[in-house]
Amino acid sequence: MQDLIDTYRAVRAETLLRIAPLSPEDCQVQSMPDTSPAKWHLAHTTWFIETFVLGAAEPQAAPYDPAFRTLFNSYYQTVGPQHPRPRRGLVTRPDLATVLAWRRAVDDRVAGLGDRLSDPRLAALLTIGMNHEQQHQELLVTDIKHLLWQNPLAPAYARGAPPAAAPATPAGWVGFDAGWTMAGKMAGHMAGHMEGNMAGQSAGQSAGQSAGNLAADMPGSEGSFSFDNEGPRHRVHLEAFEIQDRLVTQGDWQSFIADGGYQRTSLWLSAGWDWVQSAQREAPLYWHREAADAPWHTFTLFGNQTPDPASPVLHLSYYEADAFARWAGARLPSEFEWEHAARNGALHQQDDVAWQWTRSDYAPYPRYHPVEGALGEYNGKFMSGQYVLRGGSLATPAGHTRASYRNFFPPTAQWQFTGLRLARDA
Amino acid sequence: MQDLIDTYRAVRAETLLRIAPLSPEDCQVQSMPDTSPAKWHLAHTTWFIETFVLGAAEPQAAPYDPAFRTLFNSYYQTVGPQHPRPRRGLVTRPDLATVLAWRRAVDDRVAGLGDRLSDPRLAALLTIGMNHEQQHQELLVTDIKHLLWQNPLAPAYARGAPPAAAPATPAGWVGFDAGWTMAGKMAGHMAGHMEGNMAGQSAGQSAGQSAGNLAADMPGSEGSFSFDNEGPRHRVHLEAFEIQDRLVTQGDWQSFIADGGYQRTSLWLSAGWDWVQSAQREAPLYWHREAADAPWHTFTLFGNQTPDPASPVLHLSYYEADAFARWAGARLPSEFEWEHAARNGALHQQDDVAWQWTRSDYAPYPRYHPVEGALGEYNGKFMSGQYVLRGGSLATPAGHTRASYRNFFPPTAQWQFTGLRLARDA
Amino acid sequence: MQDLIDTYRAVRAETLLRIAPLSPEDCQVQSMPDTSPAKWHLAHTTWFIETFVLGAAEPQAAPYDPAFRTLFNSYYQTVGPQHPRPRRGLVTRPDLATVLAWRRAVDDRVAGLGDRLSDPRLAALLTIGMNHEQQHQELLVTDIKHLLWQNPLAPAYARGAPPAAAPATPAGWVGFDAGWTMAGKMAGHMAGHMEGNMAGQSAGQSAGQSAGNLAADMPGSEGSFSFDNEGPRHRVHLEAFEIQDRLVTQGDWQSFIADGGYQRTSLWLSAGWDWVQSAQREAPLYWHREAADAPWHTFTLFGNQTPDPASPVLHLSYYEADAFARWAGARLPSEFEWEHAARNGALHQQDDVAWQWTRSDYAPYPRYHPVEGALGEYNGKFMSGQYVLRGGSLATPAGHTRASYRNFFPPTAQWQFTGLRLARDA
Amino acid sequence: MQDLIDTYRAVRAETLLRIAPLSPEDCQVQSMPDTSPAKWHLAHTTWFIETFVLGAAEPQAAPYDPAFRTLFNSYYQTVGPQHPRPRRGLVTRPDLATVLAWRRAVDDRVAGLGDRLSDPRLAALLTIGMNHEQQHQELLVTDIKHLLWQNPLAPAYARGAPPAAAPATPAGWVGFDAGWTMAGKMAGHMAGHMEGNMAGQSAGQSAGQSAGNLAADMPGSEGSFSFDNEGPRHRVHLEAFEIQDRLVTQGDWQSFIADGGYQRTSLWLSAGWDWVQSAQREAPLYWHREAADAPWHTFTLFGNQTPDPASPVLHLSYYEADAFARWAGARLPSEFEWEHAARNGALHQQDDVAWQWTRSDYAPYPRYHPVEGALGEYNGKFMSGQYVLRGGSLATPAGHTRASYRNFFPPTAQWQFTGLRLARDA
Repeated sequence: MQDLIDTYRAVRAETLLRIAPLSPEDCQVQSMPDTSPAKWHLAHTTWFIETFVLGAAEPQAAPYDPAFRTLFNSYYQTVGPQHPRPRRGLVTRPDLATVLAWRRAVDDRVAGLGDRLSDPRLAALLTIGMNHEQQHQELLVTDIKHLLWQNPLAPAYARGAPPAAAPATPAGWVGFDAGWTMAGKMAGHMAGHMEGNMAGQSAGQSAGQSAGNLAADMPGSEGSFSFDNEGPRHRVHLEAFEIQDRLVTQGDWQSFIADGGYQRTSLWLSAGWDWVQSAQREAPLYWHREAADAPWHTFTLFGNQTPDPASPVLHLSYYEADAFARWAGARLPSEFEWEHAARNGALHQQDDVAWQWTRSDYAPYPRYHPVEGALGEYNGKFMSGQYVLRGGSLATPAGHTRASYRNFFPPTAQWQFTGLRLARDA
Repeated sequence: MQDLIDTYRAVRAETLLRIAPLSPEDCQVQSMPDTSPAKWHLAHTTWFIETFVLGAAEPQAAPYDPAFRTLFNSYYQTVGPQHPRPRRGLVTRPDLATVLAWRRAVDDRVAGLGDRLSDPRLAALLTIGMNHEQQHQELLVTDIKHLLWQNPLAPAYARGAPPAAAPATPAGWVGFDAGWTMAGKMAGHMAGHMEGNMAGQSAGQSAGQSAGNLAADMPGSEGSFSFDNEGPRHRVHLEAFEIQDRLVTQGDWQSFIADGGYQRTSLWLSAGWDWVQSAQREAPLYWHREAADAPWHTFTLFGNQTPDPASPVLHLSYYEADAFARWAGARLPSEFEWEHAARNGALHQQDDVAWQWTRSDYAPYPRYHPVEGALGEYNGKFMSGQYVLRGGSLATPAGHTRASYRNFFPPTAQWQFTGLRLARDA
Repeated sequence: MQDLIDTYRAVRAETLLRIAPLSPEDCQVQSMPDTSPAKWHLAHTTWFIETFVLGAAEPQAAPYDPAFRTLFNSYYQTVGPQHPRPRRGLVTRPDLATVLAWRRAVDDRVAGLGDRLSDPRLAALLTIGMNHEQQHQELLVTDIKHLLWQNPLAPAYARGAPPAAAPATPAGWVGFDAGWTMAGKMAGHMAGHMEGNMAGQSAGQSAGQSAGNLAADMPGSEGSFSFDNEGPRHRVHLEAFEIQDRLVTQGDWQSFIADGGYQRTSLWLSAGWDWVQSAQREAPLYWHREAADAPWHTFTLFGNQTPDPASPVLHLSYYEADAFARWAGARLPSEFEWEHAARNGALHQQDDVAWQWTRSDYAPYPRYHPVEGALGEYNGKFMSGQYVLRGGSLATPAGHTRASYRNFFPPTAQWQFTGLRLARDA
Repeated sequence: MQDLIDTYRAVRAETLLRIAPLSPEDCQVQSMPDTSPAKWHLAHTTWFIETFVLGAAEPQAAPYDPAFRTLFNSYYQTVGPQHPRPRRGLVTRPDLATVLAWRRAVDDRVAGLGDRLSDPRLAALLTIGMNHEQQHQELLVTDIKHLLWQNPLAPAYARGAPPAAAPATPAGWVGFDAGWTMAGKMAGHMAGHMEGNMAGQSAGQSAGQSAGNLAADMPGSEGSFSFDNEGPRHRVHLEAFEIQDRLVTQGDWQSFIADGGYQRTSLWLSAGWDWVQSAQREAPLYWHREAADAPWHTFTLFGNQTPDPASPVLHLSYYEADAFARWAGARLPSEFEWEHAARNGALHQQDDVAWQWTRSDYAPYPRYHPVEGALGEYNGKFMSGQYVLRGGSLATPAGHTRASYRNFFPPTAQWQFTGLRLARDA
């Protein structure tokens, strides 16, 4: 079990690494209802381990602090009441130091479980806990970026300079014939869902890990682990289609803007046009300029930068992605087209830059049924009003993505690292 | 062409029949932004004929009143600006008498077209106009019902007493094997969409069709007319499923209420639960009672009535339909399951009582492409954030429905005659 | 008593005269929560007479329609519940014809009281009813103007052309020495208040007054009738001040606009600046222009017109009036300065053009006490957050004003005929 | 000048004392738009000294950090743009440590001015700065109390137990005859105003005053310092009145609640009743109970406590104070009645428990004129829509109050330590 514990420690260490550039003040504040404070992410992931893993292993043990049970529950009704999400940033006590001490205490208790983790059920729960933590690692970064953006000083999250820009490459189309394909993971039978908007999520062992008992028993690996919304695996018929071999770039987007993309009603879905008007959008989130004839800047983890024409455009709403595709004479891929192309190795920038909007409504696969119990309590609960994103982003922890992974957000969400890949009927 | 003109006159007469019980005041008022005044429906359908039919037949002719062009445009950007939808009820001039005079003048001009209507393009446009008017006939009734509901006197729209209640019948399940089916209409290739929420609609005879056929078949008989969102016709694979042979009743719904259906978070989609809380729902729209222990009443076109346990429950949001299905251990049918069952004659109460929510997101069929020009301007424009309803309601004009008809509304809409039929995996 | 009845008939006839240019549709609609439909004004004033006059004279008589008791109560809690004010426009039944029939029936019953009106209490109640009706006559016009303004066709309320403009005259200052003055009416001891925003109003002949005097003097001649908020009469000490002999004109206002009046924060009260920003004001209500360099137009009872530089500017909020005064190096008069100047005959355009904002918070006079009973139920109730206006407007019925009259509105109100007269410290 | 510098150091030390119980997280968060983060108070008061005192003394010196000029400006347009008030809590950088270092640097520079502070103009500016800081000391406590109240753990600001309750004493009435009195301070001729809601405040030595007197007297002793809204001193005539010799208690308030005070429309101003309904109030701010029949608790600086019947009730809105007075058959005092009683020594609990609502609209005294320049930029700017409070509270720094002091807030404000003293006509 030492491997599992080592993996656990590595996952937990990654979280701390991500808050290293932050002060207690940075970790405290919630910039909008959709985001959470970094301190809350630190506490909630710890709450998850304490509640579901330690709670299963040592049901008689007292919690570190009973008050944390409500404060850091996200939405698990079975576990009890929750503190309202939009008010998370108002909870200044416990402070960051207390939360970090709690993390250490929980980690020590997990390590102390030792061979008890050979119990497949505990191992599976811990694996969920790790995958859950990885999802919060991504959110922590997206939420901090949004917070720092509120500061007129535009402070950087990361030290140093952004990676050098790659040269621009023309986009190519990859074609696929009509026919049958299989979609989804087979074994998915357990699921968690991060509060709010994040994908049904779970876990996964990094490549170097021994699958051990975990791989054998537990949920769903394309080899190992998957979330239950990735199954049941089922046959899908696709018409012939083409998909681009790279993401839409910031240079492409500037052409769209220059061509009046944000002013032309005919390019937009009706709800999208309402959004453009009411949100007064004229560029992706984080793009800004001094005046209508001044050059664009974009706020990044490295502070304000000039848009790089060769880099993928980020922080798009579904409506923006859809309008751009219409402008380009193309369309968004369906999630099954995307998955089929990914399994056939046709996708560059597959999961290391941006989550990619698909035209697929986030809905259950045929014969999907949620699991029982608290962890499955909300399966399917978010299956209305959201669209599936596929891939993964620069903020996604290594090893967390796979071809069947289904992320999802409402069509107005922009603060995630969301981009766009074009498709069209063949 | 006399047949076509007779049909046109009959459609137009039906509209007037529906406002017969109403005063000028009743016809003036808009009860909420989603609804329109009856006077606006009368004017807008006339505007549609004048703009698209007479505009095509006699492009040099002056409009009845140039100011009406903007006032009664719903959302056709190509035609020009529109008066804002939520402010329709504030336009007291022209008054009802003027609008009715305009209707008569336009109808006379249409009749005067005579044999020119043998031009297939004009015939097709007039057919669209008639189908468009029929959709507004339904909206006129739903909107008036909502308006009268605002009046504390609870006035009735219809004279007399409601139809006698049928005896309650136990619901039965009809099973279907897994396999292939065809969905959608073949010929649909043109589309309009009523402002707001009503089904994508259109017209369209394919180029090769003779107007004679059109006049003979139309409106609404399968085989002749359909909206473009009903196509392209395509193959769909269904898993084995069962569907109920009747709609969920008001008696069923009272059981749901009595079992705490509106108070149990676990029955609801996350967005649905938010809606229940913020809209403070504890029963369908139009249900009310004096106190928590008093009997329910429901506001109908005949005024307030006691719920009839054997009658289908009406005025459900998608969220309510979905929650009830979960409570009942069932689910909503997909739109293709519904269509398959309908084509196989398995559905009682198919299209004469209530539109039936399906679990299907309103999305384009494979290889769907909008038509060109003003009438197709908004094709697909409403394909986000809405769910498909199938069937037809007590307010739908005779002959207007068919198995492939796709109505759609946002999941919170309740003021339409919306009901529920259960399905489940076999 | 015939005199009183004749006066009553004349007051009631004036109301009908004011709706003569209106259709049932015009009379039905409520343009915003602050306004009421004309039909409601017609009904509510009738309700007032039926409830308070006929209710006192013939307590056993049945009301014309019991349902009207709630529908047309404005805010008299003692009388029973009220229909919510913002929803008045949604009540299409009873229709206008029914309301007019009700008016006639009530008028006939009043006339039938004959000599019973020599009862001073009944005479006093009827006098209140007439003054109440006169206030609604003004509101009816301001509310209809606001409604017609919502119509993009900008229809006129009045036939014909507006009165010819008078030549512009330079403003002169009239000075007053410091010293004592008396403010307010002596006899005021009973009060009603029109719903919403209109001046605290009342009635009242003291018990000892003969009805004969009442009939002879009333309505509105000083010495006879006043509202209770106009008293008690009391001594006030004024510092030396000067006040202008005419109202601020539309020409003056264009200078203010041209000088950046709406863009200069330093001219505005803090709350006023917030209002300018959030309401996006750049001119008085009803002023509009095609573009920033196009000429101004102003919507009037005669439709759109070019502003007349010599005419008083209308439809100002308190904040606008206050900002203009600061820009002009002056200030608003206090209500006591205004009253003192008016009693000394120093004011042109005293009460025939525009209500004039004063700097005085609407507060009770020393030792003011509300009267008992339903009519006095809300005395003082509106004495927070409003400013006093003095004078009278072009829409005020003849004979309804006097030097002690206190009208009042919140500082953001613009849809009344509100103007401005400058004052300054001597 | 050492005296002045010592006084300055003492004032600045008091601010630090007030944040001693707080963590960086506590100091970061803004609980609502009306409040500010403690860190912002620390920074803004420092900005004030750096901008107005050091800026006058050493106009060539560079600021500590140029970015702070905008970040911590509250509303002084002359000085430049401001960061939006509702977004103060989102600025996590600079962090608390940086702000405290800035404070120290500014304090050292002030101390380094030495004998230059014998310049009366600099001494006056520093005096304003100290009075400004004292006002923020009070706000800092009220704002932190409001923040901690958001935390479900109800943490205490202060260590230990609250002061022992005094025995309840019956209220007595103190009577005053009708006659003349003088109101206001003579010398006030300069003004600042804290952002948002705090009293118009100012400083200012009249031309004839020597700086020596200033240092000797100040801050706050009558005869030396006052804000300009406290003048000009002027004669006021009062009718005979009586005023209570103590504040309304928590026991009194429980009687009001028990008597249906929050449910009886007739007790409330119209705007107050709207507020009660929309804000769903049934007790003062910070009062709460588990259920309708459970005992009340009240959140205090010492955490949750049981209401003490003998202690003054706190955290009332103007509307609540007004309704209670009406219920008690009394009224609020005018600000001049209050001042007259205070100058005659008739008031217990004058300025050490709660600010006391008066019925006086916050308006300029006769012949009041704002001063020139940045510090007087907003004089009078807040003189609309607010009521005057007199006295002082448990959070007011020692020596900061006087009989002429005019605090003011909108009628809905509750988070200040606001209470009530009854008055009535004699």
